[in-house]
Amino acid sequence: MYYYKLTVAYDGTHYCGWQVQKNAITVQGTMMKAAISLFGEGVTLTGASRTDSGVHADGQVVLLVGNKEITAYSLPLALNTHLPNDIVVVKADVVDENFHPRYQDLSKTYEYRVYNGRQHMPKDQKYSMHYRHKLKIDLMQEGAKYLVGTHDFVSFASVKTTVDDTVRTIHSLEIQKDGDMITFLINGNGFLYNMVRIVVGTLLEVGNERRTPESIEQSLLAKDRSETGKTALAKGLTLKTIFYEGSKPYK
Amino acid sequence: MYYYKLTVAYDGTHYCGWQVQKNAITVQGTMMKAAISLFGEGVTLTGASRTDSGVHADGQVVLLVGNKEITAYSLPLALNTHLPNDIVVVKADVVDENFHPRYQDLSKTYEYRVYNGRQHMPKDQKYSMHYRHKLKIDLMQEGAKYLVGTHDFVSFASVKTTVDDTVRTIHSLEIQKDGDMITFLINGNGFLYNMVRIVVGTLLEVGNERRTPESIEQSLLAKDRSETGKTALAKGLTLKTIFYEGSKPYK
Repeated sequence: MYYYKLTVAYDGTHYCGWQVQKNAITVQGTMMKAAISLFGEGVTLTGASRTDSGVHADGQVVLLVGNKEITAYSLPLALNTHLPNDIVVVKADVVDENFHPRYQDLSKTYEYRVYNGRQHMPKDQKYSMHYRHKLKIDLMQEGAKYLVGTHDFVSFASVKTTVDDTVRTIHSLEIQKDGDMITFLINGNGFLYNMVRIVVGTLLEVGNERRTPESIEQSLLAKDRSETGKTALAKGLTLKTIFYEGSKPYK
Repeated sequence: MYYYKLTVAYDGTHYCGWQVQKNAITVQGTMMKAAISLFGEGVTLTGASRTDSGVHADGQVVLLVGNKEITAYSLPLALNTHLPNDIVVVKADVVDENFHPRYQDLSKTYEYRVYNGRQHMPKDQKYSMHYRHKLKIDLMQEGAKYLVGTHDFVSFASVKTTVDDTVRTIHSLEIQKDGDMITFLINGNGFLYNMVRIVVGTLLEVGNERRTPESIEQSLLAKDRSETGKTALAKGLTLKTIFYEGSKPYK
């Protein structure tokens, strides 16, 4: 068998997330059809991250295992000719059988974009959430500091979370403003179900002065989903980069 | 009558340009329906720029003349509730009857985006042109210098141009690179039919070394459309800003 690490970008608008589902169009399901036309039945695809319905990716990592040898240079184009325009294989690397996109040491960077102007600009509508109330960046930055580090993030996970261990490490959480666009960049060793969107939804309440920056610490300690804010919309979220051991480290 | 200067953003993908046409969906036609529901029959809309089919705008300027008084603060939202999501009135200013969006002293800035990586990323596909051959930025910047200033730009206009005076002034033409995205920013006092797209198409041939930077000067002097490059695709072009006398000047 041959092992390929694919870097994949997609516009998640029209997909019910990454993971294959019955009776729903997903990124994995769509990629499987392309992989089968190239490698035949028996090919497998494993995504590093199960992005939710409507979430985008610039750098999803997918392990493809197939019984045909194709050069790393040719594989992206070969797959892309079988894919719709909103899914693009950006890069392929040949890896060995020990590579697993989820079980290796890694960190992931997610980006969340919030448009904080009065009218949501047409080109930004699919790739950002519109938030009309004026947001105070400095307050959100202050609140974000409490989240960096190793914590039990159960308050920041959907109640549908099924994992037992809810401790994760956030390496960095930056909030930048460029005109009316506010960008949250969050890097960590793993994220619980809906965690990035709940982090953003909670920080928006801090920016809007409906809660204090310090309340973030209390929310963590409470270990209770009802202590945190609303889950921010899927369309503002993009999986940017997954860093593997030996690749560029998190900053 | 009441006079309003509207600043309008649109995603031009699904429109046959600005100007109203029979049997075609245009931005002006779509805005007229919204204006009529608010102001009734008799309202007029005059755009500063007749953007082509598929061209986008962040800052088109539109004069609305209607027989109803609405505050500048309320007008954008009032119109937007009647508009599809891909057309957004960003701002309204009350002006007097002497304001004309085209006949006043102005300069316009257009942006053209060229994606120069191997695979065109999903989010960029609608808002940039994909150019696979490696482009040399320094050569394009050298060629661009010949275009700045006051020249007869007839070689850089579609042969369908109907105006008699083809002399225009380009105040600045900047070419920037950010990762695989190359951005052309061009500011001038007016542009002939397809002029920005032919300027970009010709500079791409310079960047790809199919012509020299100096050949741009010869192309201007030749006054012949066949001496310049292909018209670059509409989807890479955005009308960014129109500067009026007294407003922020061109740089």
